[in-house]
Amino acid sequence: MRIALDAMGGDNAPEVTIEGAIETVSEKEDIRVVLVGDERMVSEALKSRRYPPDRISIHHASQTVSMDDSISFAIRRKRDSSIRKGIDLVKSGEADAFVSAGHSGVVMATALLVLGTSEGVDRPAIATTMPTLKERFVLIDAGANVDSTPENLLQFAYMGSAYSKHVIGVEKPRVALLSIGEEDVKGNELTKEAFSLLKNTSLNFVGNVEGKDLYQGDVDVVVCDGFTGNIALKISEGLAEAIMKMLKVEIASIATGRLAYLFMKPALKNFKKKTDYAEYGGAPLLGIRGTCIISHGRSSAKAIKNAIKTADLASRLRVDRIISDELSSLSRGMKTDLAGSPA
Amino acid sequence: MRIALDAMGGDNAPEVTIEGAIETVSEKEDIRVVLVGDERMVSEALKSRRYPPDRISIHHASQTVSMDDSISFAIRRKRDSSIRKGIDLVKSGEADAFVSAGHSGVVMATALLVLGTSEGVDRPAIATTMPTLKERFVLIDAGANVDSTPENLLQFAYMGSAYSKHVIGVEKPRVALLSIGEEDVKGNELTKEAFSLLKNTSLNFVGNVEGKDLYQGDVDVVVCDGFTGNIALKISEGLAEAIMKMLKVEIASIATGRLAYLFMKPALKNFKKKTDYAEYGGAPLLGIRGTCIISHGRSSAKAIKNAIKTADLASRLRVDRIISDELSSLSRGMKTDLAGSPA
Repeated sequence: MRIALDAMGGDNAPEVTIEGAIETVSEKEDIRVVLVGDERMVSEALKSRRYPPDRISIHHASQTVSMDDSISFAIRRKRDSSIRKGIDLVKSGEADAFVSAGHSGVVMATALLVLGTSEGVDRPAIATTMPTLKERFVLIDAGANVDSTPENLLQFAYMGSAYSKHVIGVEKPRVALLSIGEEDVKGNELTKEAFSLLKNTSLNFVGNVEGKDLYQGDVDVVVCDGFTGNIALKISEGLAEAIMKMLKVEIASIATGRLAYLFMKPALKNFKKKTDYAEYGGAPLLGIRGTCIISHGRSSAKAIKNAIKTADLASRLRVDRIISDELSSLSRGMKTDLAGSPA
Repeated sequence: MRIALDAMGGDNAPEVTIEGAIETVSEKEDIRVVLVGDERMVSEALKSRRYPPDRISIHHASQTVSMDDSISFAIRRKRDSSIRKGIDLVKSGEADAFVSAGHSGVVMATALLVLGTSEGVDRPAIATTMPTLKERFVLIDAGANVDSTPENLLQFAYMGSAYSKHVIGVEKPRVALLSIGEEDVKGNELTKEAFSLLKNTSLNFVGNVEGKDLYQGDVDVVVCDGFTGNIALKISEGLAEAIMKMLKVEIASIATGRLAYLFMKPALKNFKKKTDYAEYGGAPLLGIRGTCIISHGRSSAKAIKNAIKTADLASRLRVDRIISDELSSLSRGMKTDLAGSPA
């Protein structure tokens, strides 16, 4: 597989992205990476490193999207950005997938513009996997859209379920709706309407899941609008960090703190490994024609490597086709239902 | 002060509520508690306990609202519930405040029905205080309303700011809007409109706060709709619990785990104390005529005691009047603005 990587995206680009690309090709012989970005900067950073030259190449892009750029500005005025050029490579078939740790809003808008949505999909969505007390679950939408309709949520549910089944390997994914009570009458207008749509599908819909139960690991797919999903994701990240900081402060403040810390260090390391997003390789943008993986802005080389591996897997499995098959049959089904409905 | 306590509300009522009432009156001589609930059950539970009989009394209510009752059912069919009777006591002036660890939706709807909103307030909101790396902040609305307008959010901001200033003692509370980006153009339709209202107020509005920064402790009041607020609150509770469980599992699984646990135990205790909701005494329902404190369903006796103390403080400070003063001048100001506006 040939993966286009946004060499300029992320807090420590291009050093970290290049390092991630080199780590990937050293581990997986069947992956080639195209580093998309400023040719001079990228080749300069590559110079001091050892890598297989037949499996790492550079594709020049004269512009870089900054995190402060508005989406519309980046789309209109940065047509030669590493994001745009990378997605163009997917469109032309020169790359099988695109990975970026850059401006996720711009990646999403550019993918929508250049590649378009899959058949039957109105809006793409970001699917993030999250750790729990048991297995990981898929949170969809984690922030691709700010305002959603009940029909959007229904489509997110199908996309998340397909991803859970075909990529994560859950046979019959339990799909839940993130809301503020377990009963179907609980929630806001959006979730109440989405609930009534979801309960009449072939999905393994298990009802609402409340915030307090999210990390129990009893569901495989959690559906919500992108505003709520992004807040849920970011609060979780921020709180986990804050708790670890608070615990360290408390441990440092007691007499036996140094000893405790020494004895628990391997446990902290295991915990970090289980909860570290860097281990889990980015979030796919589902519902577009092609494979796009959005990686965390703070991505380490390991996170980039795992995102490239996710891109490789999603591309080999043709996740975009699986989703378009699911969704186009859903939309045909809905049309038939409507046509056949007496009301 | 005379506080009406829903003796039947919460997971372990009436034992825990009665215990909380007795603990309160033993600590604070100027508080009297009226236990509202089934007279036979309450007096039975009181029998084996020692308490000052002049400062604990029983007010009979023949019905109890169950957590499974819908709000409309409870309002229409349980007019003799401990929630209704307790709030009636506030209305008639026989109690200065009401505290309940029962069905928060029913408490909120009953308070709205019996006491009504303060002048200038369209919708009451639940204000919860949350721990951070620095000081605590007020989250408003934590779940009183499921769908909100930008104007509702503006009112929540004023109520939260007044509460932070007058009850918590923050001189110039920094008010922020919970959203998915720091810039004013980031967010959904609701938060973008609320942002433009908030920046033209006399509040110390500091802009959007993202989920990841919520626990940094850099703001004093976080404004959001009740759906988002409830999810933020419950995810935080659930995640904190899950992290502690995961850490314990990791610590138990390493060779030095028992020693580490032994040495860090005092630190865990300090951490728990700082983050335990039981220490912080319930969440006031702001924007109604009177004082109502909603306590966690899982409240311990200590949580009930602290909720009664919060009720006592809020009632002594006349928080409801402070809020109606703030909000009525706001609504007069808005009318003046509109009248004077050329557009």
